[in-house]
Amino acid sequence: MDSTLSRQEILDISRETTLYEWTSQKAMKPLVIDRAKGIYMWDADGKRYMDFNSQLMCVNIGHGDQRVIDAVRAQMEKVCYIAPTVATTSPRAELGQLLKDITPGNLSKAFFTNGGAEANENAIKIARMYSGRHKILVRYRAYHGATAGAITLTGDPRRWAAEPGIPGVVRIPDFYPYRAGKDLDDAEYTASVLNATEDIIQFEGPHTIAAMIIETVVGTNGILIPSAAYIKGLRALCDKYGILLICDEVMSGFGRTGEWFAVDHWGVVPDMMTLAKGLTSAYVPLGATMVTDTIAEYFEDHPLYAGLTYNAHSVGCAAGVACINIYKEDKLVENARAMGEIVKAELAKMKEKHPSIGDTRAIGLFSLVELVKNRDTREPLTPYNPRPDQLGPMPAFNAFLRENGLFTFVRWNTFFVNPPLTITEQELREGLAIIDRGLDIIDAAVA
Amino acid sequence: MDSTLSRQEILDISRETTLYEWTSQKAMKPLVIDRAKGIYMWDADGKRYMDFNSQLMCVNIGHGDQRVIDAVRAQMEKVCYIAPTVATTSPRAELGQLLKDITPGNLSKAFFTNGGAEANENAIKIARMYSGRHKILVRYRAYHGATAGAITLTGDPRRWAAEPGIPGVVRIPDFYPYRAGKDLDDAEYTASVLNATEDIIQFEGPHTIAAMIIETVVGTNGILIPSAAYIKGLRALCDKYGILLICDEVMSGFGRTGEWFAVDHWGVVPDMMTLAKGLTSAYVPLGATMVTDTIAEYFEDHPLYAGLTYNAHSVGCAAGVACINIYKEDKLVENARAMGEIVKAELAKMKEKHPSIGDTRAIGLFSLVELVKNRDTREPLTPYNPRPDQLGPMPAFNAFLRENGLFTFVRWNTFFVNPPLTITEQELREGLAIIDRGLDIIDAAVA
Ligand SMILES: Cc1ncc(COP(=O)(O)O)c(C=O)c1O
Ligand SMILES: Cc1ncc(COP(=O)(O)O)c(C=O)c1O
Repeated sequence: MDSTLSRQEILDISRETTLYEWTSQKAMKPLVIDRAKGIYMWDADGKRYMDFNSQLMCVNIGHGDQRVIDAVRAQMEKVCYIAPTVATTSPRAELGQLLKDITPGNLSKAFFTNGGAEANENAIKIARMYSGRHKILVRYRAYHGATAGAITLTGDPRRWAAEPGIPGVVRIPDFYPYRAGKDLDDAEYTASVLNATEDIIQFEGPHTIAAMIIETVVGTNGILIPSAAYIKGLRALCDKYGILLICDEVMSGFGRTGEWFAVDHWGVVPDMMTLAKGLTSAYVPLGATMVTDTIAEYFEDHPLYAGLTYNAHSVGCAAGVACINIYKEDKLVENARAMGEIVKAELAKMKEKHPSIGDTRAIGLFSLVELVKNRDTREPLTPYNPRPDQLGPMPAFNAFLRENGLFTFVRWNTFFVNPPLTITEQELREGLAIIDRGLDIIDAAVA
Repeated sequence: MDSTLSRQEILDISRETTLYEWTSQKAMKPLVIDRAKGIYMWDADGKRYMDFNSQLMCVNIGHGDQRVIDAVRAQMEKVCYIAPTVATTSPRAELGQLLKDITPGNLSKAFFTNGGAEANENAIKIARMYSGRHKILVRYRAYHGATAGAITLTGDPRRWAAEPGIPGVVRIPDFYPYRAGKDLDDAEYTASVLNATEDIIQFEGPHTIAAMIIETVVGTNGILIPSAAYIKGLRALCDKYGILLICDEVMSGFGRTGEWFAVDHWGVVPDMMTLAKGLTSAYVPLGATMVTDTIAEYFEDHPLYAGLTYNAHSVGCAAGVACINIYKEDKLVENARAMGEIVKAELAKMKEKHPSIGDTRAIGLFSLVELVKNRDTREPLTPYNPRPDQLGPMPAFNAFLRENGLFTFVRWNTFFVNPPLTITEQELREGLAIIDRGLDIIDAAVA
């Protein structure tokens, strides 16, 4: 088969021979991308887009970093794949050591998977084996992946088509001050959420609960940033009842929030942490479930009933090692922190200017704007899980950004600003200026 | 971190910072592998092993093929990763077309995943969405992966630690003539299994059953080869009751059995086929769920509620394209068929010579020897799911093979002969000769 297909051929053949995810096939209007470098990608017509979402919040080091490409090549020249049941490899050891070093507290061993869903699947499996308990506490505003276990943990509408899910999953309250009521005091709100959570633990029976899994900072479902008191309160509740705390840092990890991991902002050490995305910046699939030395110790004598063909894939591990070294060498965590301050300030300015902005939330380069019909009532610009005809001005806003060469994630009544951590101040201001202009479209619609 | 670790450092650091799968950590005694080429791999001490299991029945094209390495490099230089919700890429289109071409009948569209478990997860999800029915029929002697859905489909003991699993999974009989009784006529046996299967369909209510999923040729759980009447009978039962037939060809696909796919031996076209392993020969993780044009049509208007960050990963797709071209260029399917005849004949000879052999089963380069205490009673050499102290001479047999530079998969009372499809007659005979000598150890133990 000819390997130099035209743009139209790539579109047509993809349409005829592959299925697109999370959409009806008719509704999918893909770009064709054949080049990407740094914070930019180019479509097959040569049009350039600034990537303001790091694709799916994953290409943290930016596109096309030659150091990762070279590391992958060097590993493949030695060994591409070896069965994880038979042998270990140098990149497995190197990545294990790096993860032990950069993750907090006594998180010390990695179980490597293919992606984020599998990292969460294995975390709950490990929690159940280790604890002998069965139930898992999760929140509604959460996405944890699409395999049967991970999609049951997921609270957002992507779960519905996969129900009934796995048994034993119980919902606890979200932490979402902006939607909790206007005049609520922060400390009161935190206390009320923690109390409601503790009630549920007692109703369910603490001795039946293996783990609580949370996105440390909720990603797709709203960049919901915990208060220090809330996240420390969850850790304390878990300690009080012997429940394992699993922090899903698939999206919030690897510098995204201006620290290596979001938990580092509050000094909280989970019992397990799940990783993917930024782990390899998506150059090659890889995920990981990190466990504490206490949990690891249990599996010295007890078999770990978990596995997959591509566990600890040497090419993925080599990409992971290269990425972590790039975060360090290029001081990307520090840059995310510094650029995050600019995002925060600029979004605040936009809020002053654009009446359609209800709230802005930012931590490092993990940020979102929430749009409302009315600032006083806080009525969202779209309903929850809107039909296409309920999206109002959002598609026009998105089209404006695209036309102006900016790609970002626009979801319901929100949009995200999550560029690669390599972005410069000038690039950031350039992208934000496009967004600023685009917001006039929303303002006009709500006026 | 130093990237030239010694053998001992790689072992120690892997032990300290990573978790091994399907084992207690103390029991794991990994090799360190830092080079692999063709049918050989070398440990860090320079010892060479002939790979008689293609690792986990996946490195079908053999190790270190430069054409795949170059294709991966070339793709990474263009674009490593692009969000599947946003764009398509040339390797996605190329691989889609190749899969449409080589898979049978009206299988026409691929949904790309990370590996085999995810391919099966998505197959049952698609079956449920498409049919509006819920139950899934599966067999006990089956492995379908380790995520929550796939592990419930799995019948072997790896399932137990993940229970209770997803709802709606129902067992139908296995097809295992050797263990069905000595004097059973083949046609009678097939009829009895099909009748028992149809009974279960009626007991469960055909209108509640979305799909039946089978490994076309059962892999890890015994290289169980269907009779033509049995597999055609299953297809007919599915047609009769409007049940979708999903063939898991994760292990049996891509030339392994001497045809592109195992179903091709019997001219059976499933409604879905799941793929991984040989798809990329494990060089880079990738899986796929193939669906017929009838099923694909349904998702023109209905959203496909399925997805994952690494769906249609361009690096995996590029590796898949390179692999499929290698199968074709090097005529590997044909070679598997030819070499498979030699394996079949040689295993038959071994059976004549070694009283510990109960049965040998081979189709292409997918083959196994089943060991017994007594040929007349057919009593297995080990119990089902044996404890380490119930393995008898098996560990000594395995150690003999390793000492003599042969690596293969030894499981319970069976061992496998599944080398890369590139193997030559001379290499094959060399490896089989080592096994032949090793079998004396087993004979002595049962004498
Ligand atoms: C917080 C979180 N967890 C898990 C996942 C699932 O990761 P994957 O798509 O690699 O399975 C995602 C993906 O978006 C995520 O955002
Ligand atoms: C028949 C079959 N299906 C599915 C799987 C699962 O594939 P993976 O390990 O890539 O998830 C396997 C793995 O051995 C398999 O043999």
